[in-house]
Amino acid sequence: MQAIHTWGEALRLLLEILATVAFALSGVMAAARKKLDAVGVCVVAFLAAFGGGTLRDLLLDQRPFFWVGHVDWLWGLLLLCVLAMLFMRGRHFEPTERAMLWPDALGLGLFTSIGVDRALDSGSPALVAVLMGLITGVFGGVLRDVVCNEIPTAFRDHRPYAICAFLGGWTYIGLLQAQAPAWAALLACLLVTAGLRGLALWRNWQLPAWQE
Amino acid sequence: MQAIHTWGEALRLLLEILATVAFALSGVMAAARKKLDAVGVCVVAFLAAFGGGTLRDLLLDQRPFFWVGHVDWLWGLLLLCVLAMLFMRGRHFEPTERAMLWPDALGLGLFTSIGVDRALDSGSPALVAVLMGLITGVFGGVLRDVVCNEIPTAFRDHRPYAICAFLGGWTYIGLLQAQAPAWAALLACLLVTAGLRGLALWRNWQLPAWQE
Amino acid sequence: MQAIHTWGEALRLLLEILATVAFALSGVMAAARKKLDAVGVCVVAFLAAFGGGTLRDLLLDQRPFFWVGHVDWLWGLLLLCVLAMLFMRGRHFEPTERAMLWPDALGLGLFTSIGVDRALDSGSPALVAVLMGLITGVFGGVLRDVVCNEIPTAFRDHRPYAICAFLGGWTYIGLLQAQAPAWAALLACLLVTAGLRGLALWRNWQLPAWQE
Repeated sequence: MQAIHTWGEALRLLLEILATVAFALSGVMAAARKKLDAVGVCVVAFLAAFGGGTLRDLLLDQRPFFWVGHVDWLWGLLLLCVLAMLFMRGRHFEPTERAMLWPDALGLGLFTSIGVDRALDSGSPALVAVLMGLITGVFGGVLRDVVCNEIPTAFRDHRPYAICAFLGGWTYIGLLQAQAPAWAALLACLLVTAGLRGLALWRNWQLPAWQE
Repeated sequence: MQAIHTWGEALRLLLEILATVAFALSGVMAAARKKLDAVGVCVVAFLAAFGGGTLRDLLLDQRPFFWVGHVDWLWGLLLLCVLAMLFMRGRHFEPTERAMLWPDALGLGLFTSIGVDRALDSGSPALVAVLMGLITGVFGGVLRDVVCNEIPTAFRDHRPYAICAFLGGWTYIGLLQAQAPAWAALLACLLVTAGLRGLALWRNWQLPAWQE
Repeated sequence: MQAIHTWGEALRLLLEILATVAFALSGVMAAARKKLDAVGVCVVAFLAAFGGGTLRDLLLDQRPFFWVGHVDWLWGLLLLCVLAMLFMRGRHFEPTERAMLWPDALGLGLFTSIGVDRALDSGSPALVAVLMGLITGVFGGVLRDVVCNEIPTAFRDHRPYAICAFLGGWTYIGLLQAQAPAWAALLACLLVTAGLRGLALWRNWQLPAWQE
């Protein structure tokens, strides 16, 4: 576990844990709906939680991956999966997707802002950095759905999800261009992404659909 | 945009744009058939157009990816997707797969020859270079189909597609062995791959199928 | 082909070939069941045989891949696919999955122990090394199933498979911690993984399932 020096870092760590847990639980639920076994649940939860960041680092050629440098998070994920399976088995629990949407929106914002930050650090141009933020936030869920043999939700449910990350990423770039400090740009990206996603859920915004 | 010095380079750029557009449109159509939303259309078009080359560079450990070094192509792809969606929505347009087959054959030839060239540059043995050419030409479509939750067309429609790229790749290797200049080998690979594919379409060649 | 100096190396090479052939044939059968064409059969067999190790090397940033350094194995795989297709076509052969389970268990053990070994060599922490062993042994089959548009067998058939690799990997780590020589740890990992898998098949062990 990282040493925690200040309240700011403690808050950041707490948000990261909350976001990762939300993404991992989305994986556990997707796996449970498909009646996967214990191994499948753990793999799908791992893909949902760490898949986006791992794909980004693979594309940017950055090592070590987050979960290689922070093995305690892997142990935490395993523990979370075991607890979730015991709980869902014992209670005959039908997972409610709605309860997960709010921490998931927070996770989307956090992962996106971290992704843009990493991509800019490694010298990516603006559009590529925004795409890397989007990949970090969205492709964990995409990998989860591909392994569960579904068309990824992010590509077909006609509710703004990746688009919030896209706009949040440009907020980051725009503020940096306007000479804002990096922490403010990162925070604004997080708030815009999670805020837009929250608004979209609250107002039930829909993307235009194909004519039937 | 790259500076264009000669007629040869202008022709090459034109062919590349045509090939990339053909591949991207195949992604737009696949996404439309599955009723994906706007985000899904853009992602699937991106995978179809740049997925093969990106996978090759990932396997060869080459950076930067084409779309990181040429961000204007990414903007062009986004614009193409938006225009295609507006057009298809307005006209209640049923995409005709047949019209795409000819630029797609050209794209297969171009991408394959570029892929073999890159793999040889990075010191791959002959068979690996041919496979990298094949991956460049074929795996964009494979990724497109996997994300759309289909068995990849290239693996099941029993019409020669990857095999044309395979034979074209060996043409490249054979001509280099025979001391031909690199540009002639590249051109021959392009012509053999696209030509065989065109012949296969024209003559309706079929690969042997499993007995029913 | 590698020069073979001793009986030990000859035995190891024989086991490796047997394991790779078993994994490749599992790919050929999966492809045949889905009526893929000749290209699909070769690609799926390749993914099943070399996909796990390639994914591991991609994650560990190790090059060259096994099949780039040993092109003769690629030729052998192509030959194997052609022979298998001719044989299955001629005999109207319905592939028996059961006959493949035993060499597959051996392959799982071999690939897992090699994967753990490689990951430790590149400085991975213990849990990551175990996961890399698991990925080497299991994800060839996962990629095979994803391309064939199935939920991966390893995640849903409720028979211990990846868990055997997980326990075998920890045997490796435990013996190294206890100052055992590397070859003994590798051999123990192989025997524990393949042995547990064999026991699970023989005794028909089942993982706990979700309540209906």
